[in-house]
Amino acid sequence: MSEVARVSLVGAGPGDPELLTLKAARRLAEADVVVYDRLVSAEVLAAVPPGTARIYVGKASGRHTLPQAEINALMVRLARAGRRVVRLKGGDPLVFGRGSEEAAHLAACGVPVEVVPGITAASGCAASLGVPLTHRGLAGGVRFVTGHCREGGEPDWAALADPDTTLVFYMALATLPSIAAALLAGGLTPETPALAVANATRADERHLRTTLARLAEDVAAAGLTPPALMIVGRVVDLMQVIAPRGESGEHRHHA
Amino acid sequence: MSEVARVSLVGAGPGDPELLTLKAARRLAEADVVVYDRLVSAEVLAAVPPGTARIYVGKASGRHTLPQAEINALMVRLARAGRRVVRLKGGDPLVFGRGSEEAAHLAACGVPVEVVPGITAASGCAASLGVPLTHRGLAGGVRFVTGHCREGGEPDWAALADPDTTLVFYMALATLPSIAAALLAGGLTPETPALAVANATRADERHLRTTLARLAEDVAAAGLTPPALMIVGRVVDLMQVIAPRGESGEHRHHA
Repeated sequence: MSEVARVSLVGAGPGDPELLTLKAARRLAEADVVVYDRLVSAEVLAAVPPGTARIYVGKASGRHTLPQAEINALMVRLARAGRRVVRLKGGDPLVFGRGSEEAAHLAACGVPVEVVPGITAASGCAASLGVPLTHRGLAGGVRFVTGHCREGGEPDWAALADPDTTLVFYMALATLPSIAAALLAGGLTPETPALAVANATRADERHLRTTLARLAEDVAAAGLTPPALMIVGRVVDLMQVIAPRGESGEHRHHA
Repeated sequence: MSEVARVSLVGAGPGDPELLTLKAARRLAEADVVVYDRLVSAEVLAAVPPGTARIYVGKASGRHTLPQAEINALMVRLARAGRRVVRLKGGDPLVFGRGSEEAAHLAACGVPVEVVPGITAASGCAASLGVPLTHRGLAGGVRFVTGHCREGGEPDWAALADPDTTLVFYMALATLPSIAAALLAGGLTPETPALAVANATRADERHLRTTLARLAEDVAAAGLTPPALMIVGRVVDLMQVIAPRGESGEHRHHA
């Protein structure tokens, strides 16, 4: 019987395949099987060698795919068969996205597991659009929050309101109206700069710069679709300063 | 006269040169000059081609080096001379570390600038030690804070106390006693799991797992030196679950 192979939980980064790490690229080149979901971009998948098996386990809204328990069982089965598995996850495997649940399951089953970090979407957006996540005098820190609600209702978004902290919302398209209203109720001013980015770092990246008061409405009007990220805070104003660019591809609100 | 060259602000990641992105490695290979500071590891510097000029502009405590204005002026001068400059910064250029100030200055001087994101230290530590930054039921989000104090005193650390959010402190060795005391005063329990990591992802990585109540004392006793990161929150308990490993290299407190 073959030895149990190691599973590598690999961060695919925000979408641009050039933002894979050298280690991630090496793991993809060495893999027998790549298990991926819908947050992995087509451009990144194109970096998987042609001879490597690929298994799609992603979820699309309303479409049936593998439940988490079956994804876990699949990886254990492959590893026990001696297949080198790369579990490719969008962004960083340990920032949202259940990477740690999968890693813990593998470890509990006696499967060796390693994590290869990836560029998280916030860093990808920041670099692509010239919006720093922190900046002296404007934001002393940054906070990553998921807009994806748990069972049992929405968290207390109002408690996040702090003009000195950059807020980055992952997976927040659906809950954006609640989030924005709560942040306003929590004390952020209506003019707080806000940025929405879809498909960050990809060829089809779209962004929309507006204010907190108009964010939900403008995002709906622009028809942005997942994967999308929202950045709320004064650092958004630096976008023009750091990366002045034309308005093409940018959907501005009409003030 | 030569054309103004572009300056690439490139994230060097946490230390392991394998955690450079493909794009960062390409920019280093194409560069005429690499401008770097002390947060860039020796291992990453070794990835710079031998024929490429290197300029050290780092600050070490108490040692005189180039003030920020001179670093900015140097980059403008090099770019105007047509030299392709890579400004290499530890971690991600737009998470702490003044990357955005340098980018804004370059843009204001008419120098084209791009930002290549890097793996921030928090993601590097998380992957290396098997500590997720978020985890369903334990941490709904993560917050990056600098422990480096501005003029005008320390921020309100107590306001950061939230058992449902992972806290990551950058550059916090000096202010750790104040931070820990404030978090306890703010309501975090003394038993809140805490992790300190020095030289994350490098061959000489050292970590120390303890509790919030003992963190400052244990870090001082272990003599950890910069660059170091602190992770405070319930996710630290997952380290044993995801990445069970021997105690070698780990400095535990004696409970």
